[in-house]
Amino acid sequence: MALLVGLARLAAVTVAALVMFWALGFQTSFLPVATSADDDAASSTTQLDFIYSVLHPLLMVIGFILLTGEAILAHRTMGRWSRGTRKSAHLALQGAAFGFGVFGIWAKFQANDGVVSNFLSLHSWMGLLCLSLFASQWVVGFLSFWHRGEGRRARAAVLPWHVFLGLYTYGLAVATAETGLLEKLTFLQASRASASSSSSAARRSLESVLVNALGVGLALLCGVVVLAAVSPKGRRGGRKAAATPAKGSNGYDAVIPINNGDRSHGYRHPSSPMLMGEEEAGDGDWKLHN
Amino acid sequence: MALLVGLARLAAVTVAALVMFWALGFQTSFLPVATSADDDAASSTTQLDFIYSVLHPLLMVIGFILLTGEAILAHRTMGRWSRGTRKSAHLALQGAAFGFGVFGIWAKFQANDGVVSNFLSLHSWMGLLCLSLFASQWVVGFLSFWHRGEGRRARAAVLPWHVFLGLYTYGLAVATAETGLLEKLTFLQASRASASSSSSAARRSLESVLVNALGVGLALLCGVVVLAAVSPKGRRGGRKAAATPAKGSNGYDAVIPINNGDRSHGYRHPSSPMLMGEEEAGDGDWKLHN
Repeated sequence: MALLVGLARLAAVTVAALVMFWALGFQTSFLPVATSADDDAASSTTQLDFIYSVLHPLLMVIGFILLTGEAILAHRTMGRWSRGTRKSAHLALQGAAFGFGVFGIWAKFQANDGVVSNFLSLHSWMGLLCLSLFASQWVVGFLSFWHRGEGRRARAAVLPWHVFLGLYTYGLAVATAETGLLEKLTFLQASRASASSSSSAARRSLESVLVNALGVGLALLCGVVVLAAVSPKGRRGGRKAAATPAKGSNGYDAVIPINNGDRSHGYRHPSSPMLMGEEEAGDGDWKLHN
Repeated sequence: MALLVGLARLAAVTVAALVMFWALGFQTSFLPVATSADDDAASSTTQLDFIYSVLHPLLMVIGFILLTGEAILAHRTMGRWSRGTRKSAHLALQGAAFGFGVFGIWAKFQANDGVVSNFLSLHSWMGLLCLSLFASQWVVGFLSFWHRGEGRRARAAVLPWHVFLGLYTYGLAVATAETGLLEKLTFLQASRASASSSSSAARRSLESVLVNALGVGLALLCGVVVLAAVSPKGRRGGRKAAATPAKGSNGYDAVIPINNGDRSHGYRHPSSPMLMGEEEAGDGDWKLHN
């Protein structure tokens, strides 16, 4: 688990560095394409347009996707804190991520030509679906885990769906970001090709490699975060347990090291949160408290 | 489970209809943009170029993504057949899907200007990662499940990783398709805008709505297929079991109906394949046979 969390954070730092390098190193990509007709009007608003335009990828990648990943990992990384503290951290981080997401979309509304024209692309449709799922997840999570009027049964029924829908929304957010990256690059290449007719050179540019690396980094980050979320939490017995050979209950040596600690110390193996049954979801690591 | 499989197939049929309607109803979108310089050369190869160009989305969506989804569901839908038959069907369907995927990429090589220029975009990088994961998954799956020289221990260690990596690859394939849809639409809109300068009208066109619906349909399909794959298989007792109220082992009525059948008939609840531990992965529905 420590390895997975480390990998997730390495991927997150790489993604953050790449998106910042893109936003600050290729500023002309975020300027509106000035047509000859409205040169005067464009020059007066260029600085503000640039800020709004560059805010969108920064807020969505760092403020929304990376923060959401950290919120998902909070149930895995904060082992020393109480369950209530972990839940509070998860809720607060997701709330902050949602705020950044709404801010990032608002920034896009300011930069482009009106609100409606932003809702014509597949990128916007996916983003809208993603934000709607995210908001309903947050509200249901808030009600289920914090409202004292809800009983154990209702919360136990909600938990596996919360985990599944949450990870689905996270994957959808990453997929939406990939479409956004490709939309931006394709638009830039089409514009520059018609302007300079050096299409091939533009496509091979450093910016293209940078954005492609950002996209691949996001895909890998998503895989590592989801893997960490669905893996049972291991090594409760501490780091020493990993050094002693562990026996599984079927008599075979444990092959996957991430739960050595649990088995060699005779703990009950915690259930996976991906189970869609009520009983298992209430067991082990993801147990509900009344 | 029957509901999930039904939903998955409804989504699959919708996606197939949308991509065929796009390919056959908007043929001009798949024609190469003829520049004035090479009009003579272009007209002679237009028909062949169109076929190659239109084959790529058809093969990747129907032949690769939909067939892969059906292969994933084979472990859920073929309950009346033996485990060996289900494995054979899964392996054969995935092999066919891989063949269609390679054919679809080959078709793209024929239509565009050379092989190398196809590997500059994020879409191609994601597709390459996806196909590499798919191929290694197929080989490892083939070796683990069919090679008689491998022992139970090695196969038990591989199984949960096979399930996780397989579902990750499936999600990555869908995300790659989304980027491909957006790349195509953005390129078309940029080309048509520079030709006719009626950008807004082009973006609101029926084609745009059709492709956006295709993208949303793919995202929903992915969610339903993954949900069906990670849900424990229920209703072994037949359809009658669903009508009788079931009691969970904690005394509460079962809330999620997909495993009513198992509980009311006293079967051991099958484990989720998403568990990364060896013991649970070997239990229940996903049990290995020597």
